Amino acid sequence: MAIVDITVIPIGTETPSVSDYVVEIQKVLEANTDKIRYELTPMSTLIEGEMEDLLEVIRQVHEVPFQNGIQRVATNIRIDDRRDKKVKMTDKVNTIQSKLNNHA
Amino acid sequence: MAIVDITVIPIGTETPSVSDYVVEIQKVLEANTDKIRYELTPMSTLIEGEMEDLLEVIRQVHEVPFQNGIQRVATNIRIDDRRDKKVKMTDKVNTIQSKLNNHA
Amino acid sequence: MAIVDITVIPIGTETPSVSDYVVEIQKVLEANTDKIRYELTPMSTLIEGEMEDLLEVIRQVHEVPFQNGIQRVATNIRIDDRRDKKVKMTDKVNTIQSKLNNHA
Amino acid sequence: MAIVDITVIPIGTETPSVSDYVVEIQKVLEANTDKIRYELTPMSTLIEGEMEDLLEVIRQVHEVPFQNGIQRVATNIRIDDRRDKKVKMTDKVNTIQSKLNNHA
Repeated sequence: MAIVDITVIPIGTETPSVSDYVVEIQKVLEANTDKIRYELTPMSTLIEGEMEDLLEVIRQVHEVPFQNGIQRVATNIRIDDRRDKKVKMTDKVNTIQSKLNNHA
Repeated sequence: MAIVDITVIPIGTETPSVSDYVVEIQKVLEANTDKIRYELTPMSTLIEGEMEDLLEVIRQVHEVPFQNGIQRVATNIRIDDRRDKKVKMTDKVNTIQSKLNNHA
Repeated sequence: MAIVDITVIPIGTETPSVSDYVVEIQKVLEANTDKIRYELTPMSTLIEGEMEDLLEVIRQVHEVPFQNGIQRVATNIRIDDRRDKKVKMTDKVNTIQSKLNNHA
Repeated sequence: MAIVDITVIPIGTETPSVSDYVVEIQKVLEANTDKIRYELTPMSTLIEGEMEDLLEVIRQVHEVPFQNGIQRVATNIRIDDRRDKKVKMTDKVNTIQSKLNNHA
């Protein structure tokens, strides 16, 4: 199980807003929830799943701006893949929060 | 006002866990809340503020692993800086959510 | 044709050096030169090819540290995918260089 | 001494080409060569120097698209900062190359 953090930036959009593309990407993610879990943050989309499924979903979301007429896309991906134990998105924030509370 | 998305990876930690460093970084951020707002996600820390303050906070959090004995640090930063209108972290997710609801 | 810029950081290496893993990754890339072209820079590896081939190569290089005993890997990827014209790695630097010379 | 790998993406450019902005960024870097060394790759610009100087140069290059009328900029930065030994950009590629040759 790995977690992917992805931003997909359409280049050549005329306006500074890219939210319409983000909306379309959310729909693609929603169509894949049999294989992955996802979460929208103010800066990116986080996706949790098996590496093979994640790469397939990355391929699909990277295509979204092209399907909407854009000619150039800059996609940025961080992968955090840990195999000594199964870590989920919720666990990670909880671990930090409980360590912070213990220190306080 | 800009939003920064930052990960600080200590290299040469012996163990796969880096949560102790993340805890220390949260303390540094907490000490800067007169100038910036921050939010922990499962994959990174988001920081909102003026560019000058953000760069100073980036400098401080990048130093944290070194102050704890680490000899090499890989820091990754995404900056989203929009000047045609003031966008806050909460606005960005709300915009997508309301567009998704309208489409549904 | 797209260009990918990738860093693969093994976490929990005991020492600050990661060059042995980079060497193994170069061998994986060399074994794929029927489908992709690659270039090592001081900060990352650049790979040029069709998206489907690039995603398969990303999968392979991300696996390298795990195959060498590492339990956690942080991979960072930038994809630049332009479809209005075919852009190669060498073209991009040449374009900037010639524009700089014309301005001088 | 650290090495920074930076991409500055102007959003809302109307056309897919961003090379004019890259040219302007190279001029800003050239004006800072008393403090830093830089190198253009097909995917980003690499900058070598002391952390304080690097952050100041990051601030300057991130401003370039705004100075040219753009209203939103997405900047992506990787910092590799190693303090157990002084590593320069040229050393890093040479280390990998010589290890590859020894293995062959």
